[in-house]
Amino acid sequence: MAEDDKFDIAIIGGGPAGLSAALTGRIRNKKIAVFEHLDFSEKLQKAHLVDNYLGLPEVSGKGLMQHFSGHVLAHKPRIVKEKVMNVFPGENMFTLLTPKATYEAKAIIIATGVVSTLLFEGERDLLGRGVSYCATCDGRMFEGKDVAVISYTAEGENEIEFLGELCRSVYFLPQYKADFSRMRAPVKVLAAKPKAIVGDGQVEKLVTDQEELKVHGVFIMRQSDPVENLLPGLELDGEVIKVNRDLSTSIPGVFAAGDCTGKPWQIAKATGEGLVAVLSAITYIDKL
Amino acid sequence: MAEDDKFDIAIIGGGPAGLSAALTGRIRNKKIAVFEHLDFSEKLQKAHLVDNYLGLPEVSGKGLMQHFSGHVLAHKPRIVKEKVMNVFPGENMFTLLTPKATYEAKAIIIATGVVSTLLFEGERDLLGRGVSYCATCDGRMFEGKDVAVISYTAEGENEIEFLGELCRSVYFLPQYKADFSRMRAPVKVLAAKPKAIVGDGQVEKLVTDQEELKVHGVFIMRQSDPVENLLPGLELDGEVIKVNRDLSTSIPGVFAAGDCTGKPWQIAKATGEGLVAVLSAITYIDKL
Repeated sequence: MAEDDKFDIAIIGGGPAGLSAALTGRIRNKKIAVFEHLDFSEKLQKAHLVDNYLGLPEVSGKGLMQHFSGHVLAHKPRIVKEKVMNVFPGENMFTLLTPKATYEAKAIIIATGVVSTLLFEGERDLLGRGVSYCATCDGRMFEGKDVAVISYTAEGENEIEFLGELCRSVYFLPQYKADFSRMRAPVKVLAAKPKAIVGDGQVEKLVTDQEELKVHGVFIMRQSDPVENLLPGLELDGEVIKVNRDLSTSIPGVFAAGDCTGKPWQIAKATGEGLVAVLSAITYIDKL
Repeated sequence: MAEDDKFDIAIIGGGPAGLSAALTGRIRNKKIAVFEHLDFSEKLQKAHLVDNYLGLPEVSGKGLMQHFSGHVLAHKPRIVKEKVMNVFPGENMFTLLTPKATYEAKAIIIATGVVSTLLFEGERDLLGRGVSYCATCDGRMFEGKDVAVISYTAEGENEIEFLGELCRSVYFLPQYKADFSRMRAPVKVLAAKPKAIVGDGQVEKLVTDQEELKVHGVFIMRQSDPVENLLPGLELDGEVIKVNRDLSTSIPGVFAAGDCTGKPWQIAKATGEGLVAVLSAITYIDKL
């Protein structure tokens, strides 16, 4: 692996928590990567007006993220525009897999935002058996076959085009509003709510509130994947990542910050936790 | 008590944690008092340059506090320029005592900054027996007598003038650098380090690294008093206030935020905790 792809701290997520961690990490002169495949917190960018981030009164969500990202980018962390699919713990380091490459870091900060907790019936059992969170990773397994794509984020649309080139049919179930008129066969846009994924050891169909779709694969595109998929064995506290006061988690070297550690889902809570998490990560690294 | 002096939430301290709590508390339309006898975080105002508060790059400590206080004051919390000496829990409310008046609040947020933990030998035992943290409150007990004042903050100088009018002699031991040439008899400025307060059931003398001063009283002026004096029975975790993830403390209705809950002593940690504390306090109040 190129030295360029080895970091002190890998921060997964470029919202307020991740950026706050990156800022102080860089000021402390650590080699920092921010994995941000979205455009710096889609959710926050949509906020009409934010007035409770102390010091920046009455700013739009978009304006606030411009302040945030501008501030951080001036300190030159590496921004990796790839989605981290898995993190594997190794000896005094972690390996991160994206659809495109492999990276290493001594410590991890998870700042992936609100944790997806309402999994579909059958989703957990059939994960890796037809259920996937990454078309780029797993698409080729479904060449010439039929798949469904459930997407909560516009980011999923690129993946759909890719699947459209590969698969016999692609049922696209967007769970957000947008203009989908540019979608071409074999992609078929369906206004339906997914209910369950069914199959005996392998995906056989997707049940919606309208019909049953016979498919070989179901791709689910959320703003963040279930944490248990990212880093198996990470202890949760109910629906969120269990953290201590120093934002350490149940896995040594792994820290978490922001919405993924629980409510309140607020910017100042996220930036504060990002700061504490990175300082704790630095303490951890210095002891290695 | 005037309705004006009854609050939903009393925030003790006007640094970043207290101001962040006040901001969100006001936005949530609660009746908020900020007890701030210092000028919005003396400590932060002295910081030459702050660059890790996300969104406000390369700002002076003074500039940052101007952003902070301007933002909060626009939302019109009540700012009470008095020092809270004691908090007494009552039925579904707390009473706060300052040298000048009495206030009530349904919930309390302690945001008093770094906790004073290195007490002088004898300080704890002789508190209320000649040791005092408030000349305005206790000065009259020492009329015509001899006192010493140990001060870590310029704020103590007003109190010294008051004691100078009352007492036979006032030994002033400033623990910071400044020009004290305007001090007049009976105030005597001593460049000495206090070591111990000695007395058998009542203060008899102050021992310094230079000499022993025979005094009836010792006033100690720190930026914040020992927490155990403010609110007896509050559980500590080592040297700091013990808090849960929602910033609640061992006393229902009492929350804490910022440096007083422990390191890192950083602005974003303080503002994040202030936010979480006030939302937790609002949840507490709504359940009353």
